[in-house]
Amino acid sequence: MHDQIFSLDALRSAYAAGRRPDEVVAEVFRRIRAAGDPGIFLHLNDEAAVAAEARALGPYDADRPLWGIPFAVKDNIDVAGLPTTAACPAYAYHPARDAFTVARLREAGALVIGKTNLDQFATGLVGVRTPYPVPRNALDPEIVPGGSSSGSAVAVARGIVCFALGTDTAGSGRVPAALNNIVGLKPTLGAFSATGVVPACRTLDTVSIFALTVADAFEAFCVAAAFDPDDAYGRKVRVSPLAAPPPSIRVGVPDAASLRFFGDKVQEASFRAGLARLEGCGATVVEIDFQPFHAVAEMLYEGAWVAERHTVIGDLIARSPDAVHPVTRAIVGKAESLSAADAFRGFYRLADLRRETEPVLDAIDMLCVPTIPTFYSLADLEADPIGPNSRLGTYTNFVNLLDLCGISVPTMPRDDGRPGSLTLLARAGQDGLIASVATWLEQFGPRTLGATQWPVPAAPDLRAVAQADEVEIAVCG
Amino acid sequence: MHDQIFSLDALRSAYAAGRRPDEVVAEVFRRIRAAGDPGIFLHLNDEAAVAAEARALGPYDADRPLWGIPFAVKDNIDVAGLPTTAACPAYAYHPARDAFTVARLREAGALVIGKTNLDQFATGLVGVRTPYPVPRNALDPEIVPGGSSSGSAVAVARGIVCFALGTDTAGSGRVPAALNNIVGLKPTLGAFSATGVVPACRTLDTVSIFALTVADAFEAFCVAAAFDPDDAYGRKVRVSPLAAPPPSIRVGVPDAASLRFFGDKVQEASFRAGLARLEGCGATVVEIDFQPFHAVAEMLYEGAWVAERHTVIGDLIARSPDAVHPVTRAIVGKAESLSAADAFRGFYRLADLRRETEPVLDAIDMLCVPTIPTFYSLADLEADPIGPNSRLGTYTNFVNLLDLCGISVPTMPRDDGRPGSLTLLARAGQDGLIASVATWLEQFGPRTLGATQWPVPAAPDLRAVAQADEVEIAVCG
Repeated sequence: MHDQIFSLDALRSAYAAGRRPDEVVAEVFRRIRAAGDPGIFLHLNDEAAVAAEARALGPYDADRPLWGIPFAVKDNIDVAGLPTTAACPAYAYHPARDAFTVARLREAGALVIGKTNLDQFATGLVGVRTPYPVPRNALDPEIVPGGSSSGSAVAVARGIVCFALGTDTAGSGRVPAALNNIVGLKPTLGAFSATGVVPACRTLDTVSIFALTVADAFEAFCVAAAFDPDDAYGRKVRVSPLAAPPPSIRVGVPDAASLRFFGDKVQEASFRAGLARLEGCGATVVEIDFQPFHAVAEMLYEGAWVAERHTVIGDLIARSPDAVHPVTRAIVGKAESLSAADAFRGFYRLADLRRETEPVLDAIDMLCVPTIPTFYSLADLEADPIGPNSRLGTYTNFVNLLDLCGISVPTMPRDDGRPGSLTLLARAGQDGLIASVATWLEQFGPRTLGATQWPVPAAPDLRAVAQADEVEIAVCG
Repeated sequence: MHDQIFSLDALRSAYAAGRRPDEVVAEVFRRIRAAGDPGIFLHLNDEAAVAAEARALGPYDADRPLWGIPFAVKDNIDVAGLPTTAACPAYAYHPARDAFTVARLREAGALVIGKTNLDQFATGLVGVRTPYPVPRNALDPEIVPGGSSSGSAVAVARGIVCFALGTDTAGSGRVPAALNNIVGLKPTLGAFSATGVVPACRTLDTVSIFALTVADAFEAFCVAAAFDPDDAYGRKVRVSPLAAPPPSIRVGVPDAASLRFFGDKVQEASFRAGLARLEGCGATVVEIDFQPFHAVAEMLYEGAWVAERHTVIGDLIARSPDAVHPVTRAIVGKAESLSAADAFRGFYRLADLRRETEPVLDAIDMLCVPTIPTFYSLADLEADPIGPNSRLGTYTNFVNLLDLCGISVPTMPRDDGRPGSLTLLARAGQDGLIASVATWLEQFGPRTLGATQWPVPAAPDLRAVAQADEVEIAVCG
């Protein structure tokens, strides 16, 4: 059991062969203890209770897509019976109900193991802005785990759970994926309900999925995605099972003048190798001027949207300033000098920049960017808690402001052994398209999954289907 | 020539029979002088220059849809060669180019006569918030002309021009139509370019059309509507020529508890008579709870959007407070106490209310409301410059916040002889559908056009077409 691979296919095979889910639950908790990292989970479900829930699933039911699948939940997403803290003990509350998305996953047979650590209030891309112990990066304890969904990413990378929920406003569902050699799927805004989720920037937030493989992440996405009429920002996003990419794909990439690696030549080489892989699979790579995208990215923390965070924790900061992490407090406090007119000026600027990006996006099927420009160590963050964090958002901050969907996918390791990672981005509703192309990248080069020694499974057998516009598309869920 | 009807059909017939456009121009200027109202136009084009422009059109060309058609332009929309003041002399500038929409109309052969008065910076629904003489209501000089597009509405109602451009944020393209017995077409947001238009609330503004008949308004709409890539809020709105309404139409109307006439029983009776007319034409009238729509309406001036106006004139108010009308200054000044967080709280509230209206709108084809709840006199506004203005927006303020298109259409006069008016509203892109149903209402009862003695022309001969979703729809322009 110790060598049981925690992928959906592997677990299903084990279940079909007679493995019991309470045995899997026991193995999950054994791995948690073996990891010896108190920073991953902020709250664990009671092991006996999860085992009982597993037994209550009854006999193996292949029709329940996540039957007996263990998963973890970022601690800004409600799970009934566990507190929600958003990594701020003073903010904690005890939700009566599961978040909408958690409930859907459980209905499909998945088992909640516990709640994971995060940059407090999901403000940060580093994973160190927490009053709890910082989770260790699953591959290299010297580098940051990435955030804000730090615990969820590490739990998946260490093979403790099959998948985990994160959230993603600025890149919190992608940056930690890149830093831990796993997949981070950031859905189209509104595809996942925000009911039962602590908002960061309510107009830009989404729940996200971490998994070891694209296929696993996408399956969890299909189960979790559903229109929630109680979420005013929910949208009816059409998703279909993973299919083969269309025969001809145009992939826009930042031109040489737009690329930013902050001196990391190895990361640049890794990015170029990834693009060559895409071309080798038949994609056409098109260089684009990325300046409007960079300009949008800079608006996220410089512009009005930080005021959204203030609507969530402004009262807490005023009442108990010391209850909030000092870096978080400094960032969110900037909102206090922003007027409503400033907010509208920000929207006008964003509208102008969006218009600039439209012809670029019209001419391609998707974008491909590095997920992160480089790696930062815990020591780097101690020396400068802001700068490295900002730079980690270089290729992620613009994505939700432009209403793109994205998937960060591990690819061939860098020459120095650090994980390679690329992100594919496309217009809202194209989650399936980018996931299908992501399967090309995860099959690139010798690699194991996350921080495990588990091999990359064979490429999924994807049916060729007609272009999305030409076929009827089923709504998942 | 004095009795020449200024409708598109009548003028085209005259042109086809040999009438010269410079003769029509001379008649326009004669009517302006005869009107004896210095409040209608803030700036007139030089008569000789317009006559020369008319002669330069060459021989009559039936293929130019607005060949020789005189029109007026609200003075917050640029016309090259005339100042743009937005009814604030201190704000005036001299644009080098026509606004995008004006340019399209001129390319189609239309002739700009002059720039019309307005509530300063398009802030108001009454027409009296201007430092210039207040235009007289075309029907009754005791009542307000309505605003903010006061001069444009009066110029059309008096038969001075065939159509006029207004703008509409809160109802400025509809309220003056109701008060002057003409049609006010408020397009889907983004259908008309905002390039060359002084913003009021940039996210909610649209240029609008006044005309004597639905057919004339819709023809001008089809000419003017076009995607403008330079306007970040421009949208690709598909419009098709006016067609017969589909055989079955469900029209939502406020239920008895939601109706607000502020004691005006005659207006209530007029509204009910209009609904009976709709039913007589085959529509199904469905009563709905209008509270969410009223709640949205209240947000327009109570909520964050007033900060948009502040982005336009905040600097002017700070520099030269006396240059701004005191009522306008007081309204826009409210923005100074609104934070960016307040703005986002407003958006969240709007999103929740929008979600509440969605099932209502899903169950009907369009809404029908009174354009105005009652009439107010100049004396009423002198006694209270704010209250009557707010009440005039009862059935208009929510429309752009909910991204609806609308058309205000005159209908059978009230029992006391005041003009009857209804507004039809539908989701973005349904401009043609509501215009087609509006033709039923303008044919209701004995009536003349605007303030003229011209008869209502026979109903246009509308082709029956399949539902919009089932046919290929051509983009106008």
